[in-house]
Amino acid sequence: MASCYGDRIKVSIFGQSHSAAIGVVIDGFPAGNVVNMEELRAFMKRRAPGQSATSTSRKEADQPEVLSGLVNAIPELCSPCGGKSAGISGVEEYTTCGAPLAIIIRNTDMRSGDYSELRDVPRPSHADYPAYVKFGKCHDIAGGGHFSGRLTAPLCAAGGICIQILGRMGINITSRIVQIGGVTDPTLHESEILTAKSHGDSVGGVIECTADGVPAGWGEPIFDGMENKIAAAIFGIPGIKGIEFGNGFAGAGLRGSQNNDSFCMDGGTVKTRTNNSGGILGGITNGMPIVFRVAVKPTPSISQEQQSVSLSQGEDTILRVRGRHDPCIVPRALPCVESAAAIALYDAFLASKEG
Amino acid sequence: MASCYGDRIKVSIFGQSHSAAIGVVIDGFPAGNVVNMEELRAFMKRRAPGQSATSTSRKEADQPEVLSGLVNAIPELCSPCGGKSAGISGVEEYTTCGAPLAIIIRNTDMRSGDYSELRDVPRPSHADYPAYVKFGKCHDIAGGGHFSGRLTAPLCAAGGICIQILGRMGINITSRIVQIGGVTDPTLHESEILTAKSHGDSVGGVIECTADGVPAGWGEPIFDGMENKIAAAIFGIPGIKGIEFGNGFAGAGLRGSQNNDSFCMDGGTVKTRTNNSGGILGGITNGMPIVFRVAVKPTPSISQEQQSVSLSQGEDTILRVRGRHDPCIVPRALPCVESAAAIALYDAFLASKEG
Amino acid sequence: MASCYGDRIKVSIFGQSHSAAIGVVIDGFPAGNVVNMEELRAFMKRRAPGQSATSTSRKEADQPEVLSGLVNAIPELCSPCGGKSAGISGVEEYTTCGAPLAIIIRNTDMRSGDYSELRDVPRPSHADYPAYVKFGKCHDIAGGGHFSGRLTAPLCAAGGICIQILGRMGINITSRIVQIGGVTDPTLHESEILTAKSHGDSVGGVIECTADGVPAGWGEPIFDGMENKIAAAIFGIPGIKGIEFGNGFAGAGLRGSQNNDSFCMDGGTVKTRTNNSGGILGGITNGMPIVFRVAVKPTPSISQEQQSVSLSQGEDTILRVRGRHDPCIVPRALPCVESAAAIALYDAFLASKEG
Amino acid sequence: MASCYGDRIKVSIFGQSHSAAIGVVIDGFPAGNVVNMEELRAFMKRRAPGQSATSTSRKEADQPEVLSGLVNAIPELCSPCGGKSAGISGVEEYTTCGAPLAIIIRNTDMRSGDYSELRDVPRPSHADYPAYVKFGKCHDIAGGGHFSGRLTAPLCAAGGICIQILGRMGINITSRIVQIGGVTDPTLHESEILTAKSHGDSVGGVIECTADGVPAGWGEPIFDGMENKIAAAIFGIPGIKGIEFGNGFAGAGLRGSQNNDSFCMDGGTVKTRTNNSGGILGGITNGMPIVFRVAVKPTPSISQEQQSVSLSQGEDTILRVRGRHDPCIVPRALPCVESAAAIALYDAFLASKEG
Repeated sequence: MASCYGDRIKVSIFGQSHSAAIGVVIDGFPAGNVVNMEELRAFMKRRAPGQSATSTSRKEADQPEVLSGLVNAIPELCSPCGGKSAGISGVEEYTTCGAPLAIIIRNTDMRSGDYSELRDVPRPSHADYPAYVKFGKCHDIAGGGHFSGRLTAPLCAAGGICIQILGRMGINITSRIVQIGGVTDPTLHESEILTAKSHGDSVGGVIECTADGVPAGWGEPIFDGMENKIAAAIFGIPGIKGIEFGNGFAGAGLRGSQNNDSFCMDGGTVKTRTNNSGGILGGITNGMPIVFRVAVKPTPSISQEQQSVSLSQGEDTILRVRGRHDPCIVPRALPCVESAAAIALYDAFLASKEG
Repeated sequence: MASCYGDRIKVSIFGQSHSAAIGVVIDGFPAGNVVNMEELRAFMKRRAPGQSATSTSRKEADQPEVLSGLVNAIPELCSPCGGKSAGISGVEEYTTCGAPLAIIIRNTDMRSGDYSELRDVPRPSHADYPAYVKFGKCHDIAGGGHFSGRLTAPLCAAGGICIQILGRMGINITSRIVQIGGVTDPTLHESEILTAKSHGDSVGGVIECTADGVPAGWGEPIFDGMENKIAAAIFGIPGIKGIEFGNGFAGAGLRGSQNNDSFCMDGGTVKTRTNNSGGILGGITNGMPIVFRVAVKPTPSISQEQQSVSLSQGEDTILRVRGRHDPCIVPRALPCVESAAAIALYDAFLASKEG
Repeated sequence: MASCYGDRIKVSIFGQSHSAAIGVVIDGFPAGNVVNMEELRAFMKRRAPGQSATSTSRKEADQPEVLSGLVNAIPELCSPCGGKSAGISGVEEYTTCGAPLAIIIRNTDMRSGDYSELRDVPRPSHADYPAYVKFGKCHDIAGGGHFSGRLTAPLCAAGGICIQILGRMGINITSRIVQIGGVTDPTLHESEILTAKSHGDSVGGVIECTADGVPAGWGEPIFDGMENKIAAAIFGIPGIKGIEFGNGFAGAGLRGSQNNDSFCMDGGTVKTRTNNSGGILGGITNGMPIVFRVAVKPTPSISQEQQSVSLSQGEDTILRVRGRHDPCIVPRALPCVESAAAIALYDAFLASKEG
Repeated sequence: MASCYGDRIKVSIFGQSHSAAIGVVIDGFPAGNVVNMEELRAFMKRRAPGQSATSTSRKEADQPEVLSGLVNAIPELCSPCGGKSAGISGVEEYTTCGAPLAIIIRNTDMRSGDYSELRDVPRPSHADYPAYVKFGKCHDIAGGGHFSGRLTAPLCAAGGICIQILGRMGINITSRIVQIGGVTDPTLHESEILTAKSHGDSVGGVIECTADGVPAGWGEPIFDGMENKIAAAIFGIPGIKGIEFGNGFAGAGLRGSQNNDSFCMDGGTVKTRTNNSGGILGGITNGMPIVFRVAVKPTPSISQEQQSVSLSQGEDTILRVRGRHDPCIVPRALPCVESAAAIALYDAFLASKEG
């Protein structure tokens, strides 16, 4: 297993849905980057469960607890913060000290319950079965274990910090829902989720993410291209089954003369008139906004009866999944997608300084 | 720059379109794997240019020359082959000896020509401009340099060997064109390309790749999932702008009850009735065929007049690209997609042996 | 910064001497390996401070707190442990579940004190000065920050677990002091340390480490040799300035006829009559015990007056280091050396399974 | 196998003693670095065999052939060189273009001979036996295969280029023999080698390497320290069994008051009065010269009769090694040691730019 990402920063995610804590270590942040804890908590809250009728009822405050890597932001008073000491006049700003950041999030609202049935009867389209094949009886199946969507909380802790640092460099990463199920009208997204929920069902969707302000020249040819790096991070989010950059699959249906982004000067800067390339050419950013879309599958945990098998008996059986689940993870996935993009971009930024 | 891929095997691709040679080093093949050179050449020929009216007229035999890493396949006669000595009775079989494989392909049909205009006026949707920003005046722009599609020849050399080894394990990797431009009927694909060509234009498409016979349990959670690994390799192929696994973007429009792949027993084996997941759950293979599709953009090199800028003058200008180009790279991209998938799968296979 | 080690397992160490906690994430342990917490605590206690007159008076219980990655060892009762639940009948045995292990150690006995002088006047032969150059004012200097010998506690947590797993495979890793200062007689080692201490001074030494039972065939040629891997881990321990394998520097003074280890059969097994190679040939283990020695420099923190400079004034000055320090870190370094060796060996073991 | 090194540059060495060619790919050189081919050949000649009575009689010109990664050094005339085109007025200067460098060296003076005995009867203190265990019958044993000292030729190609680039930054890497066998007097070194040779024997030695001009701040704490990085590269050279930085093992015998390097101002620069630390504190360079020594074992190939075993018969036997061998590899190892150091330093330099 390698729940690790990055060449220049090394992001190592750990934890299971029902372990004492989940968390992340980020190795490689240069010293002197400011981290605002209030902003980080606000960012992570966008992902946290239990906030609306469209998400699971599991309550987790998702409070990030910084164990190391930050010092008080006022250099004259520099002291290790441990995530505990308050900043000056209520502003909770800390500074990276050059040592790896470690952030944990305690698991609090766990219902250990009885997972013996799930051990024997894998949930369709869940990781239960491949995890059983890979890890055997010792797999920690409770709440999905290490495969739980809950592991995106530390992803957002790491990503939220990268977003802050990139933001100070003039790079803004945003995302929006462009589709819930078959519905593209944003005013109907919530009702589509609630309809699915009312049927004991779930629904998928599509997210579009944009990074504005990325300068030209980040990313490398062939395997370390910006697309490779973003895709490798994005598929770390459970439930994502597709990614396309610029006009992606739609562009595959066009002629070159339609799809090519012609260059033009814009006040001394080279720009393109269209952005079908999504800001990336030959793996390298071209100075236009990076734009990509991801396909999020419908949550596999539904309360409807499903067909599965008993692994111990080797025979078909019926499964009814109990427990608390999101009818649609798309809204909560927005900060996760932004986080994955931010981590990939920050890693590419550091690499670009070597050139 | 890191034109390197892999954790257990390390694939390092080198070369420029007009350098003396291009090639690849593959570090990490266990000793004792048979490589059939005839098969490899046949595989690489599927990618080679100059074979039909739908591809560039550049003639490159694309003969792989093995510099190291193989020995004669008959252990009793074991000797280093250097890619030169013939095998027994015309069968050109060699065996990996445990040392890194190095394979080169000589560049022969180069027209050095005058690239000074391209240095100043970047081709729309090409890597010219970001490469200029990143590498400056020393960028080897001739023929696209390291960004040329020609660099997929060593990718196919590495992938072709992985395909042979996986094939002997019962894993078959195939691909097919599912769309050329807006056309999905296979009988009309060629004419669609020729029509674009006749207009001095190009056209994109979609490829579907399938890996049959992959056992359950390959891949890791979060960042080393099978989707992450395949995507990170696939975007190493120039012109690919999207990837989706299983039903991908279409699945995002479904309900969980429609999208979930229910399990069933099939003669003692756990299978799923549908394969919307494309053979991967939680990043790990589930024993069903791995299926993914990639979006290939239309070749940016078209002979129609295009709008660009003069980097030296800082003003808009008109560009007319000369030279030999593919009106559609989709047919030649098939073995490249299979190669990227095979490399990712073989790397995951080696990792799975550690468990 | 990359306080990360390993190719197959990824060990990521975090924390500062005075941060809330220090710790380690270990990604890549296969599921099903038993971890005995009592053994682990006993192992880590060998490194813990405050236990004798020859070590610092800082009191740290160094209790490892497992946040994730382990489940109860009895499969029938499998549940995530979080390091809290007691085992069956007092035996604290847990099992790796396949997810990354995260272990933290709280810092408790911190004396924040005033580090402003150390910020300005670097301690001779300490990391203060290069850390100031590298990290600037934000460097967390308190207690040595991330450079503190305290960071070997999480190293020992990771190493102690590898030692347990290797032990069950028949591999035993031991170490002993072969020299304290200029003294080689073990009965005089303690008095040599106390003499140095009584002078407000410190003293170095040499440790020999042996790994018995390692089978032939681990390690790789050239850069991933067993010597490369062990050395790369060992120099992660602060204060180590040299390493030699087998007879090392002494062997450099010999003839080949004296130094070569001739082979012989020993009950069906290939052995060597001598072990000048220290169990490694061509980077690969040969089945003989791995033996290496490391040079530990005298602790740089001494209470005697020393010459240094004021970084703010740019002039020479006198420094007197206050605080609690080890007069000799050699005894406490023994489990650290064993840990580094065990991590390197376990990583090589996993790689050897790919062959 | 992973004959790969580096985090920011990726050095991948390939080839066997008797394969068609050996070589190296170096990925990650920023564009615009000048490479002087005449200097490189002169540097590599220091390692080449057949030049004196103290080295093997195998004749290899060791001509580096650049396949890719360089362009003509005159930007106005930029064109891919392929290692073939002459420079302006006889000065063979090229420039890195940002793409990976690939350099090969043809093997020419191979005597394939009969290696069947070596397959069965491993040479003492050679890699034959562990390679047999690891790679089995397919191991390319001819001339030592991938384990041959010949593989240090591509190491020197990569290192020689790093030395040129570092040299232009004011960093000079030099090395000298400090001991041959038991002899430290440089005027007696050659005769000591010839005496060993006359007895059909070999002899080891010690090399000291110095890097002057390295600024403070390169290297990272814990596992990516400068000592870790240099050691991990150095043990890639066959026959090296020990490394020590600064006063190394001698320093282990001192008190802190003797060993500490006190700081002083030297014309506005922070220096140390002594350099027992060898220029590295806490893994990070401190601005003083980097100094380390390596122990080189006596060449295991000696013509005297030796005791070994027959692997097929499982019984003790007598071995007499034939062929051409160096009685002492220390003189030819000098550029190899410098190369390993230069590669490690250049990699650390690139990383330092991220801070």
